Amino acid sequence: MDLWFTEKQTEKFGITAKVKQTLHTEQTDFQKLDMIETEEWGNMLVLDGMVMTTQKDEFVYHEMIAHVPLFTHPSPKHVLVVGGGDGGVIREILKHKQVEKATLVEIDGKVIEYSKKYIPKIAGALDDPRVEVKVADGFKHIAESKRAYDVIMVDSTEPVGPAVGLFTKGFYDGISKALKEDGILVAQTDNPWFKADLIKQVYGDVQEIFPITRLYTANIPTYPSGLWTFTMGSKIHDPLKVKEERFTEIETNYYTKELHYASFALPKFVKDLTE
Amino acid sequence: MDLWFTEKQTEKFGITAKVKQTLHTEQTDFQKLDMIETEEWGNMLVLDGMVMTTQKDEFVYHEMIAHVPLFTHPSPKHVLVVGGGDGGVIREILKHKQVEKATLVEIDGKVIEYSKKYIPKIAGALDDPRVEVKVADGFKHIAESKRAYDVIMVDSTEPVGPAVGLFTKGFYDGISKALKEDGILVAQTDNPWFKADLIKQVYGDVQEIFPITRLYTANIPTYPSGLWTFTMGSKIHDPLKVKEERFTEIETNYYTKELHYASFALPKFVKDLTE
Repeated sequence: MDLWFTEKQTEKFGITAKVKQTLHTEQTDFQKLDMIETEEWGNMLVLDGMVMTTQKDEFVYHEMIAHVPLFTHPSPKHVLVVGGGDGGVIREILKHKQVEKATLVEIDGKVIEYSKKYIPKIAGALDDPRVEVKVADGFKHIAESKRAYDVIMVDSTEPVGPAVGLFTKGFYDGISKALKEDGILVAQTDNPWFKADLIKQVYGDVQEIFPITRLYTANIPTYPSGLWTFTMGSKIHDPLKVKEERFTEIETNYYTKELHYASFALPKFVKDLTE
Repeated sequence: MDLWFTEKQTEKFGITAKVKQTLHTEQTDFQKLDMIETEEWGNMLVLDGMVMTTQKDEFVYHEMIAHVPLFTHPSPKHVLVVGGGDGGVIREILKHKQVEKATLVEIDGKVIEYSKKYIPKIAGALDDPRVEVKVADGFKHIAESKRAYDVIMVDSTEPVGPAVGLFTKGFYDGISKALKEDGILVAQTDNPWFKADLIKQVYGDVQEIFPITRLYTANIPTYPSGLWTFTMGSKIHDPLKVKEERFTEIETNYYTKELHYASFALPKFVKDLTE
């Protein structure tokens, strides 16, 4: 039998991947969780039918959401990840020696459990002594945090299901308060081909709260359209004016110092969403 | 009936698009040609089962293969396109006022015929008086041309079927001879996720012939992996050292001056293919 997993990324378009086997499938308290072994991308975490991460291309998303803000901040000591239960962002954060503590607040403990079991190269970092893992509501955690973090990364699912609240202005406002006086927010903000309105809305909201707001992109083949955006809100530090000596050597497969800057150069139709 | 077109971009992965209707299907002398109307991407030209261009995302490929070399060259007067029977590259070339003549050499007249019929906004430029269209073998045309062109663009299909010869060192060597003494070659060279070896090989070949060899990328959602590469070989002019006044105003939807430079900043795993 030939088994294929198809994600309809829109009602009219999708990707399809040949499946070796289903490793786990479960309706958690929050979402449908599937872990499948695909032939092209290795093990793949799927939430509510949407690809979250795969062994083969996960490095792009995780490096780009983490290193761009972390190199922008001159001294990131305490970093918060909202969502990101697969652990990939945490793994990248830990490559920065200055980080003393990385806190992960993931609403769905099952994501953590099955990521540790089936994608350990991604999730293994969650057991590091510098990491604090909380299975809790990220929205609430933000509301209860004041001037606590240097960098906050919103590694959420798409704005359906449990992540809806993570794309609201109230949430970004809470993040601003949860950040220290020179803190930085970065959030994954979907793709400009199918979700232009969302990017425009989030960019506008973040811009009303943060003095420096910038959009950057990365190529993620298993995500809709392959072109992903991240929205950064920063109180003081400009990602386009990083001091040269700040770029210390870390091992990456996608991020480079040149790409740090280049990722902010937007295609015209994407740039238009920010104006 | 729900109709979906699926392109297996590898044996184990592909894209799938909902189809309104098939507009034309034919086995030409060179390849299987399908023109379909899709719901997400509008009309779509498919050759040998591979998406060549769609109404919705065609601007990315056509702008990026054309404007990067044309702004790099200080005075491109005569430009050759090998392949590209859909006419999109020609349309972009004509945006440059200095271009006196754009020659298209397409091996398959049927591609031109059905592009004019079903994707006229892409192919309409082929009727411009500055354009010369030849239905002929691009490999032969190159072998017979000496110091004739300022810029040569290889807008071929993937290296299967009629395009195999267009990915050989002998072909790039012929292009070098067909170019004037300060000429520029640019070729589409597939994607780094599934065709890393091809990129490495072409880059190495071009580098042995052209003093300045550079790789750049663009996001094309309907092409495999969404991350496309172009290889540029230049005799004198460096795409990273364009004189500021050279960037004249043209209307684009993807290309910008900033992106011109940024597109050469490669993800680490892609950069590694060029070293």
